[in-house]
Amino acid sequence: MASTPSAHPDVMEKLVSLCKRRGFIFQSSEIYGGTGSVWDYGPLGVELKRNLKDRWWNAMVRSRDDIEGLDAAILMHPRTWEASGHVAGFTDPLVDCRNCKKRFRADDPKIKGTPGQPDAQCPACGMKGTLSEPRMFNLMFKTFMGPVEESASVVYLRPETAQGIYVNFLNVQQSTRQKVPFGIAQIGKAFRNEITPGNFIFRTREFEQMEMQFFVDPEKDHMEWFEYWKAQRMAWHLSLGLDEGRLLFHQHTPEELAHYARAAFDIQFDFGGTLGFQEIEGVHHRGDFDLNRHQEYSGKKLEYFDQPNNRRFVPFVVETSVGADRTALALLVNGYREETVEGETEGRVVLGLPAQLAPVKAGVFPLVKKDGMPEFAEKLAKELRSAFPVFYDESGAIGRRYRRQDEIGTPFCVTVDGTSNEDNTVTIRDRDTLQQVRVDAGKVKGWILERLGT
Amino acid sequence: MASTPSAHPDVMEKLVSLCKRRGFIFQSSEIYGGTGSVWDYGPLGVELKRNLKDRWWNAMVRSRDDIEGLDAAILMHPRTWEASGHVAGFTDPLVDCRNCKKRFRADDPKIKGTPGQPDAQCPACGMKGTLSEPRMFNLMFKTFMGPVEESASVVYLRPETAQGIYVNFLNVQQSTRQKVPFGIAQIGKAFRNEITPGNFIFRTREFEQMEMQFFVDPEKDHMEWFEYWKAQRMAWHLSLGLDEGRLLFHQHTPEELAHYARAAFDIQFDFGGTLGFQEIEGVHHRGDFDLNRHQEYSGKKLEYFDQPNNRRFVPFVVETSVGADRTALALLVNGYREETVEGETEGRVVLGLPAQLAPVKAGVFPLVKKDGMPEFAEKLAKELRSAFPVFYDESGAIGRRYRRQDEIGTPFCVTVDGTSNEDNTVTIRDRDTLQQVRVDAGKVKGWILERLGT
Repeated sequence: MASTPSAHPDVMEKLVSLCKRRGFIFQSSEIYGGTGSVWDYGPLGVELKRNLKDRWWNAMVRSRDDIEGLDAAILMHPRTWEASGHVAGFTDPLVDCRNCKKRFRADDPKIKGTPGQPDAQCPACGMKGTLSEPRMFNLMFKTFMGPVEESASVVYLRPETAQGIYVNFLNVQQSTRQKVPFGIAQIGKAFRNEITPGNFIFRTREFEQMEMQFFVDPEKDHMEWFEYWKAQRMAWHLSLGLDEGRLLFHQHTPEELAHYARAAFDIQFDFGGTLGFQEIEGVHHRGDFDLNRHQEYSGKKLEYFDQPNNRRFVPFVVETSVGADRTALALLVNGYREETVEGETEGRVVLGLPAQLAPVKAGVFPLVKKDGMPEFAEKLAKELRSAFPVFYDESGAIGRRYRRQDEIGTPFCVTVDGTSNEDNTVTIRDRDTLQQVRVDAGKVKGWILERLGT
Repeated sequence: MASTPSAHPDVMEKLVSLCKRRGFIFQSSEIYGGTGSVWDYGPLGVELKRNLKDRWWNAMVRSRDDIEGLDAAILMHPRTWEASGHVAGFTDPLVDCRNCKKRFRADDPKIKGTPGQPDAQCPACGMKGTLSEPRMFNLMFKTFMGPVEESASVVYLRPETAQGIYVNFLNVQQSTRQKVPFGIAQIGKAFRNEITPGNFIFRTREFEQMEMQFFVDPEKDHMEWFEYWKAQRMAWHLSLGLDEGRLLFHQHTPEELAHYARAAFDIQFDFGGTLGFQEIEGVHHRGDFDLNRHQEYSGKKLEYFDQPNNRRFVPFVVETSVGADRTALALLVNGYREETVEGETEGRVVLGLPAQLAPVKAGVFPLVKKDGMPEFAEKLAKELRSAFPVFYDESGAIGRRYRRQDEIGTPFCVTVDGTSNEDNTVTIRDRDTLQQVRVDAGKVKGWILERLGT
């Protein structure tokens, strides 16, 4: 899958362990042995993901006057997925073993021979000639709405959020009086019954998308808008602190390009190891395919009325679609490092998350548990907590407390020491430079807020 | 259902219309005739709901050191729902008509006679004796994970978020080193295949919960914590600006009380009309029922280790569970008013939302479209947009533009007029008092931020 080889080591196993131990990400329903490729975000993970989603929302919706927000439901009318092509075409080829009843993707490299032929060997039970011909398996999760399980009541868990935007195109345009070009953005869950999910939170059956569909005039500057969004979205990933050398554009080849797409680029991030460069966002020029299909299947017009020119048209769509979980994983991979610190025998693990995205902004410690230091530190922690998330810690050696915060990406550690009660100052230690500055306790909040850019 | 009669008129129909027209809430998949009792939040609705959820998250998680956040998956291991009792007991009684094949809740008041008996009359086709005996229908949405539709691959869409917290109790406690008493909070979607949903976004098949489970020592002050959370949660709803006279506690009677609950109060809001007082939040003392059941079904210990006393115990749980959609609806109902304005012939509709929750914080208008006023106003709008959502409007009479903003709850309208270019001042109009003050254009952002309490 990775066309560009990775220059970075594989840190996934270490991250999975760190994420569980420190409360970023747990296996879903772990006490029951887990749910297949579904994950729960713990106390730190939920804050990291919230910060990431808020940042996207602010950049794409709140700070712009040409993009409107939306939060469409997961359960949509089933005709939506006929129009979108998902009922007919959102499939993977699957083969069964008649002997052991196991199932595989037809292109599973562990299968020896050609499925359906006498020479094909089952990778699970090892029998020959027991693998069926490939059949197409739909990746949408199916459920039933209403009290009866029958075909008329089938609904699907949406496999992408985009269609919720298309079917609401005129509702949004008319209620907001937006003029083309304009966009509609939403953050929400989507579900795919993947046969071979994996790589931690990279490919999961339940995931979250941050999508924006930009509606443009088909007779005007649609290619310019496509180029504009390509550049904007890459700039956004760089603004998260992802290394420039780990990001690239991958242009879809004619074979990769969806039949309706006019042009498509993926933004890929280098996850290291054998996973290497993988898509974290798609910037796709979808033409008028989707709106046309919904017009056809619903019998409702989805045309924009260009009043000044007294002209009606179905807009072209430029889509930007980010995986929220994949981007969170990219941040963790990008930030993870193991270091030796000069003058210390024990190394440290650091999550170099940008301060704005870090789950905890400051650790607050009394140097020792006496001489009024805990009281001073607790009071300061309480004051800071009114402005941003803070972790108060008084247990163990101070070096160990620093390292606990380094490992979860906390950018600043504030320590109350022997002189604090005398001159009302504390030290602030920087996670990356390890430098410490003495600051008046009353100015710590402002000092940190300034560095959070808020 | 409503035990306390309502003193307020029914504004639901007017709200549904306003919400569609102005972009708060649309019927899901409307172009396909809608999805049964599922709704999409439009540009204004998504901001209102985001503001509401952020406020809850800040109050319950970020500003406290004794509550941790979580974001567990919708698709959980199916044993979860055997342990919770939902597979066996989360059911409604249902009857079928053998003639017209329609289905009803057995207690549907439109049914004449006793279902299953010869005298029972079908409310749809009118035939007698065709209604079946009631059978129990499970309200969980069922789907299949993996490539085969068979009983071993059944999973459910979670009907509540609480169980995601219980199964993660030890993961969260151990990774954060929290000590009992402490809580775990999460916001997320849940799904119930209701037979009789309705009343706009009050009872829907897809909805969002804001839940917090507080773990307390069963031998200590658990009833005090229950009382504490009752008081805290009522105070929170009042802080949203909901009228005190429209809120009350409803104590569960012995018949209403779930078999495992030690005490339970609902916070009810008066939605007006025949809907009247209905639950928007539940504060429930669940004892050790849930953790015990998960221990039993998973074979894993879910005990807290009380180190100072060298004692292990399964904590009691006090739950606070708010419906995000219901609370959003309460805000809309509570804020909706029709007024006549002194000196004006045309009345106005106002959504009296608190400024902190309003989707748009300021409308910005040039008084007329000339003399540099649009340029001045656009520049100001752009500056304000860096801090909060703003709507720029230059079309139509100024009174009409004010009324458009009143109707969506915008607390402030900033007008650029003939003197703005001379002395750099603008007027700010208050939505509720209608009073206007002249403010230096450079101070508008600070003036509004101050009133948003940020």
